[in-house]
Amino acid sequence: MFKDKIGKASEKNRSRIVLALDLVEASREKLLRKSFSLLENLSNLICAVKINRHLVLPLGLFDGVKKIVGFIHRFGLPAIMDCKINDIGSTNLIIAKNYFRAGFDALTVNPIIGFEDGLKPVLSLAHKNGKGVITVVYMSHKGAKEFYERKVLDGGKPKPQYILFAEKSLRWKVDGVVVGATKPRKIGEIKKVLGEKIPIYSPGIGVQGGKAEKALKMGSSFLIVGRKIINAKNPIKEAERIRMLYG
Amino acid sequence: MFKDKIGKASEKNRSRIVLALDLVEASREKLLRKSFSLLENLSNLICAVKINRHLVLPLGLFDGVKKIVGFIHRFGLPAIMDCKINDIGSTNLIIAKNYFRAGFDALTVNPIIGFEDGLKPVLSLAHKNGKGVITVVYMSHKGAKEFYERKVLDGGKPKPQYILFAEKSLRWKVDGVVVGATKPRKIGEIKKVLGEKIPIYSPGIGVQGGKAEKALKMGSSFLIVGRKIINAKNPIKEAERIRMLYG
Repeated sequence: MFKDKIGKASEKNRSRIVLALDLVEASREKLLRKSFSLLENLSNLICAVKINRHLVLPLGLFDGVKKIVGFIHRFGLPAIMDCKINDIGSTNLIIAKNYFRAGFDALTVNPIIGFEDGLKPVLSLAHKNGKGVITVVYMSHKGAKEFYERKVLDGGKPKPQYILFAEKSLRWKVDGVVVGATKPRKIGEIKKVLGEKIPIYSPGIGVQGGKAEKALKMGSSFLIVGRKIINAKNPIKEAERIRMLYG
Repeated sequence: MFKDKIGKASEKNRSRIVLALDLVEASREKLLRKSFSLLENLSNLICAVKINRHLVLPLGLFDGVKKIVGFIHRFGLPAIMDCKINDIGSTNLIIAKNYFRAGFDALTVNPIIGFEDGLKPVLSLAHKNGKGVITVVYMSHKGAKEFYERKVLDGGKPKPQYILFAEKSLRWKVDGVVVGATKPRKIGEIKKVLGEKIPIYSPGIGVQGGKAEKALKMGSSFLIVGRKIINAKNPIKEAERIRMLYG
């Protein structure tokens, strides 16, 4: 199970940092070299690695990214693909199968597509293969206010969209939810919905203005940190500093 | 402008069919061969080609898909990337830049991310480069009922999520909206919001049970057709038949 994999790595490295490998480099060679060197330097300070289209589109999934996933696994770390799946069931399955075939241990999904012929086939495929599915419940950018914070009707009662996404995620038995750290109070509200059943992953620490201490205090289990570490003068020192916050 | 490109191709070929090249083949060679042969046979019966992760993930964007996009352009047809962008602004820009660099003329976006630091940077980049942005306003699968049809509050007034997505799309000045053809009445409702300003693209014809005639009658400008044509015994005949519906 994915939860066990990340739990084990987190315990071993005493870290709740999910490293977001959101690199922007001029060439494929540089993207690969930088990925490998960051992983080599940070592998014992993090509990998982998250990859996004920053790597998949320039490198190709099977030509470049698969090698990086293999390298991540060598350190006993799980690899999460942040693909935010949001298509119809048959297409979602194609996407998920490809990412799982390339070695990923979990992937992110946008709950807006709903369960039937949306999330359901992805969850079934994932859980049949010991993989994880993480729903994006609240995002970390400014525009999240427009729809994620909007009141929606649920059985006639108004509630924020992100609360309904959290309630549904609990019902769907997903393996994690993403809640941006830029508004820590929302983490607390969502933690109340999820309890100890589903861990919260929080991006937006640092560059986007979210505070790590606050996110953890409000209920986040994992911090997704990208630019704050990978663009630091000394990525090791920066990762150590963030890891210490809850040491 | 993207609207002119697709309009010109549509007029020349007297077709409103956007071919969805959603191929599933066992090898890269077969994916490429089938793509080229379908394009060669259907190029004068369609007005654009839509590509999804079915091709991008196995082939790679720059190793395989770029060649297909080049081939599509040889026939004077625009290429649409159905990536349903739904991330934070900086990531959305990375995704959009990569697809545009590979030659795509337009891409799809999920409006759930909102405008600020979500859709806005994508729209600016696209329009600066004569490219198009198409928002997914209503989806064609069963799960669409769960959130796209849900009533949301707008200034205290309840309205379906898809109507609000359509109203916002109009305000954002996007180049097209996707509305599933499985529920034709929704096409009519959304057409009322958009008028003649923004064309409606409707997938779900055929395999998913949407009727082409009805979609066009209710206000769709373009039909997105994939499996119904590419899995037909005779794809040319099938494309000709669908094209005739509004000949």
